[in-house]
Amino acid sequence: MKCAGPIDVRDVDESCINIDPIQVGGRLTPEAMKAVIAYGDGYSVCDNCRKPFRLDYIKAPPVDAFHRDLAAFLHMDVARVVPGARRGFQAVADTYVQKGDPVLITALSHYTEVLAVEGCGGTLREVPKSREDLITPDAAAETIERVSKEFGRPPSLFFLDHVDYQFGNVHPVKEIIRVAHQHDIPVLLNGAYTVGIMEVDGKDLGADFVVGSGHKSMAAPAPSGVLATTTERAGDLFRTTQARTDLTGRTFGVKEVEMMGCTLMGVTLIGMMASFPRVLERVKHWDSEVEKSRRVVDSIRSIEGTRILSEEPRNHTLTRVDTIHSFDKVAQTHKKRGFFLSSALRARGIAGTIPGATKVWKFNTYGMTEKQADYVARAFREIAAENGLRVGNQLKTSDL
Amino acid sequence: MKCAGPIDVRDVDESCINIDPIQVGGRLTPEAMKAVIAYGDGYSVCDNCRKPFRLDYIKAPPVDAFHRDLAAFLHMDVARVVPGARRGFQAVADTYVQKGDPVLITALSHYTEVLAVEGCGGTLREVPKSREDLITPDAAAETIERVSKEFGRPPSLFFLDHVDYQFGNVHPVKEIIRVAHQHDIPVLLNGAYTVGIMEVDGKDLGADFVVGSGHKSMAAPAPSGVLATTTERAGDLFRTTQARTDLTGRTFGVKEVEMMGCTLMGVTLIGMMASFPRVLERVKHWDSEVEKSRRVVDSIRSIEGTRILSEEPRNHTLTRVDTIHSFDKVAQTHKKRGFFLSSALRARGIAGTIPGATKVWKFNTYGMTEKQADYVARAFREIAAENGLRVGNQLKTSDL
Repeated sequence: MKCAGPIDVRDVDESCINIDPIQVGGRLTPEAMKAVIAYGDGYSVCDNCRKPFRLDYIKAPPVDAFHRDLAAFLHMDVARVVPGARRGFQAVADTYVQKGDPVLITALSHYTEVLAVEGCGGTLREVPKSREDLITPDAAAETIERVSKEFGRPPSLFFLDHVDYQFGNVHPVKEIIRVAHQHDIPVLLNGAYTVGIMEVDGKDLGADFVVGSGHKSMAAPAPSGVLATTTERAGDLFRTTQARTDLTGRTFGVKEVEMMGCTLMGVTLIGMMASFPRVLERVKHWDSEVEKSRRVVDSIRSIEGTRILSEEPRNHTLTRVDTIHSFDKVAQTHKKRGFFLSSALRARGIAGTIPGATKVWKFNTYGMTEKQADYVARAFREIAAENGLRVGNQLKTSDL
Repeated sequence: MKCAGPIDVRDVDESCINIDPIQVGGRLTPEAMKAVIAYGDGYSVCDNCRKPFRLDYIKAPPVDAFHRDLAAFLHMDVARVVPGARRGFQAVADTYVQKGDPVLITALSHYTEVLAVEGCGGTLREVPKSREDLITPDAAAETIERVSKEFGRPPSLFFLDHVDYQFGNVHPVKEIIRVAHQHDIPVLLNGAYTVGIMEVDGKDLGADFVVGSGHKSMAAPAPSGVLATTTERAGDLFRTTQARTDLTGRTFGVKEVEMMGCTLMGVTLIGMMASFPRVLERVKHWDSEVEKSRRVVDSIRSIEGTRILSEEPRNHTLTRVDTIHSFDKVAQTHKKRGFFLSSALRARGIAGTIPGATKVWKFNTYGMTEKQADYVARAFREIAAENGLRVGNQLKTSDL
């Protein structure tokens, strides 16, 4: 069925259990859906924009209070909404990185951090990952020393993923940030996979900047996100325009250069705001999300030939698996080839895997009910068994 | 009534005739509203994102075709969607402007152009406006010569507003662009007030870059917009990442640096897409929009003491008026002070003026029916008469 012109109605999250690695934390809450309908029109949150004419001063809807609430939620001093986490990376890189400056990322950094650095002409240096696919404080310390020697100065900025997008591993960011700060390197904590689903205490972690993604983990429409910082850094990062035009002498008040003035003027912001009370609540139940993740992982691990590539026990709902010696073996002779797996999952109402992918792939169990987690866990074992793979005892993480 | 938590339901465009200067071109079409409901969830357009994993390659929904259609609509070669026109300005400035470079704006340029230049360290120089508040080719030529002399080189970039935000005046951009090109200066045409409501032929105008705003003039949710360019410029502006990480040797395929990879992953893009067929149609009826604008302006002009500050006859639906010697005179003694005007308008179901503003203000008639235009025209005269202002014969623009 079409909803408009050639655009199909989208109901994957209503009709299926979605295990897409990037989509599950960004599904709207019912409150956000209602608000989105009311605020769909372009500049919808701007009805009551009054002097000094900036998004975060708007009182109705309570955009101003939301900004304060966002900062408090992250245990940071100041927060702004941004059109996606990547625009937060860009703002920080543009503020702190000069052409040719060394900038640290990690071997597990997201590509958008790379683009942010490339955009402002910084030189990338990676902190290596351990054999367990973790970034360690020791590796950070060694890299900082090596790079500082190479460039004759410490890196200008360090992009650190709280949970990485490749494995969904939780890295010891507090300890890594402590190391960076010993060298006076400001750290941007990329919380795209944590802010909005786990509790993130930026102050306790010591982050100079915390970035979150609305559409990835805050039950908000795209593109949306949050960029928070400390009082100390806010003056640089959220500096207001100093421009004065040469002929007319115009100045532009409190507009912030890196924000390009206002950022989310409508449906994206209202969606973040409307979901926020549930987000505040849901982060408290992260343990039960992890428990469900482990249940599904236990099932997949029990299929002979399958390897869980993410750290175990799982501490996150995003998991990377290697099924080269299980599902991909089936794909070699199956009449549907590699498509048999996504097809069998879809037949059971499970969506969000890439059709044809049977080698190394990812899934995310965030937001499932207990019943759905059990159902998904069973589905993988059933599909394996039906296709002649041996399915062992379903070992619990706790038995590993 | 609340729609979620402390957020009031918004129905200004359903219950009133909205004359807000920035909102009227960004109201969703019914098709966009339907699509927004179906695609509210975060990464909603990414269900079928496959290699090489970039927004403009997605086939279902037909994001790829939409990109081609957008370019064709603007008579340009290549188009990308961006989170607001300002992000298009930023991408172009970051590509073409080096620190210290002179960059031309005009005396009527929007502040977001200023921020884009400030962000990359360019030096602003303004082309003056004429006494009629127009930017002329002569003024552009003189400024280019003066600035080229001052800096020993021509400006790197010229930001030119097709229709300015202050007066809604239509500037002779084709002739101005011709002058700029004689000095090899690339021109960005800011079509925030034209793209999506008027026909804009970027090729005919000679623009190197055309930027439009989804939420201002394309009946789309915020933040959204379009950035289009020529084949000649596309290689620079939409350059793909050249980064290769030092330890893991990772490269990042076809991700575009200035776009920060993907841009509008959900509701914003689908809203633009769903409204697009109506946008294609509505630009053909711009004449009737101008006619309605003139009708309302004729009425306001007939109120003694009122001055129309925008060019006349009006060629746009956005108009700036000076009512210091009419409505503001009333405000001096009215018990509601300056609020009497917005209050009287609101009582007649007309919204979108700033409460308290009775001196110099703007309104936009875009999207009204004929009946609504007549109603609004009559309302202004009635309010004036009720408050003791003399109302003259309603001169038609054609009689001026």
